[in-house]
Amino acid sequence: MSRPTRWNTVLRTATALFAANGFGAATVSQVARRARLSKPGLYYHVRDKEELLFRICDSSMAGILAGARGAVAATGDPAKQLRELIRAHTAFHWQHPKNLAILFGQGKYLSAERRRRVVAMEREYLRLVRGVIREGQRRRRFQRVDPTVAAFSLFAMLNTLDGWYDARGRIRPRDLVAELERLYLGGLAAGAPAPHPRLPRGAPQQGGFT
Amino acid sequence: MSRPTRWNTVLRTATALFAANGFGAATVSQVARRARLSKPGLYYHVRDKEELLFRICDSSMAGILAGARGAVAATGDPAKQLRELIRAHTAFHWQHPKNLAILFGQGKYLSAERRRRVVAMEREYLRLVRGVIREGQRRRRFQRVDPTVAAFSLFAMLNTLDGWYDARGRIRPRDLVAELERLYLGGLAAGAPAPHPRLPRGAPQQGGFT
Repeated sequence: MSRPTRWNTVLRTATALFAANGFGAATVSQVARRARLSKPGLYYHVRDKEELLFRICDSSMAGILAGARGAVAATGDPAKQLRELIRAHTAFHWQHPKNLAILFGQGKYLSAERRRRVVAMEREYLRLVRGVIREGQRRRRFQRVDPTVAAFSLFAMLNTLDGWYDARGRIRPRDLVAELERLYLGGLAAGAPAPHPRLPRGAPQQGGFT
Repeated sequence: MSRPTRWNTVLRTATALFAANGFGAATVSQVARRARLSKPGLYYHVRDKEELLFRICDSSMAGILAGARGAVAATGDPAKQLRELIRAHTAFHWQHPKNLAILFGQGKYLSAERRRRVVAMEREYLRLVRGVIREGQRRRRFQRVDPTVAAFSLFAMLNTLDGWYDARGRIRPRDLVAELERLYLGGLAAGAPAPHPRLPRGAPQQGGFT
């Protein structure tokens, strides 16, 4: 087993354990045993349990942020950027179903310095989303709702799916994403000022009568 | 000090303690000391620590549900019902700022039987909100988004305020509520089918030429 693969096993094992029992109740010995490593073998990879938590939170937030940056870079249209961002965020969640719950529920157990590094990425994500919303407002595509309220409302919708949505249930993941897009983007666009001034009635059409 | 007042002190004290340290770390002795009661004095009111947690969760969910029922009873218009419901939910949160975090974060520590009683009220709240959304769709005022997705998206927006919103900050509580209403109700109304069939082009206007 190569080092990156073994490391992935450690990370996956710790994620499952923290999600099931909480960071406080989990032990390094449990992680080692379930990852089929000796304790010294595990300590070759990480200094302590808190470093495991940090690596989970750090890689999760980095993954979410990378997805969001890709979404914004993919198109110049603010509504499409948000649509791609919603797809990237939910795709990350389905690929790593326990990570967001650990990031948002147990990130508080990180040391101050490590917490700051994760929070810096969260702030960058917020800055990115607010920027897209402001650009949509500048183009008169979105209503003049406060960008911070609108951004956190989106995070709320995306980060609480774990609490109620079952991907094996009645609503398929891609249908859920489509519903969230319609609801959220519909709300942003509601009552937006008209995007272009209309021609007055009776104004001459270019090309005249044809 | 009359019994109801002393009971309120116990409940407020336990709420503050569970919110600060978590249910697991808090002790009955701490609650008694902070509420200025002897331990036997506290046991006159409750059997154990889990009963304290139950009383907090039970009264919180009952309060939220009562507010929602009042909102729905106050008017027959689905959009107005949801607007009143958003106001009642946020008003409860500002009056009891720690209760929702305990209900949703620590309700899992309740015994199975007590958890069922709280969850039954949560289901009733969900049923209520879905009913209003369906009625709005029936009247062609709301778009055909899945009522379950729409209901949980609303709960997400309302129940995560504690994580990012500071009532003493730049956005006043009543302005926040107005923004949430515009965003959420705007999303529900977006792309809704026209409420009344339009007259065909060229159809005679009542009254003819004037």
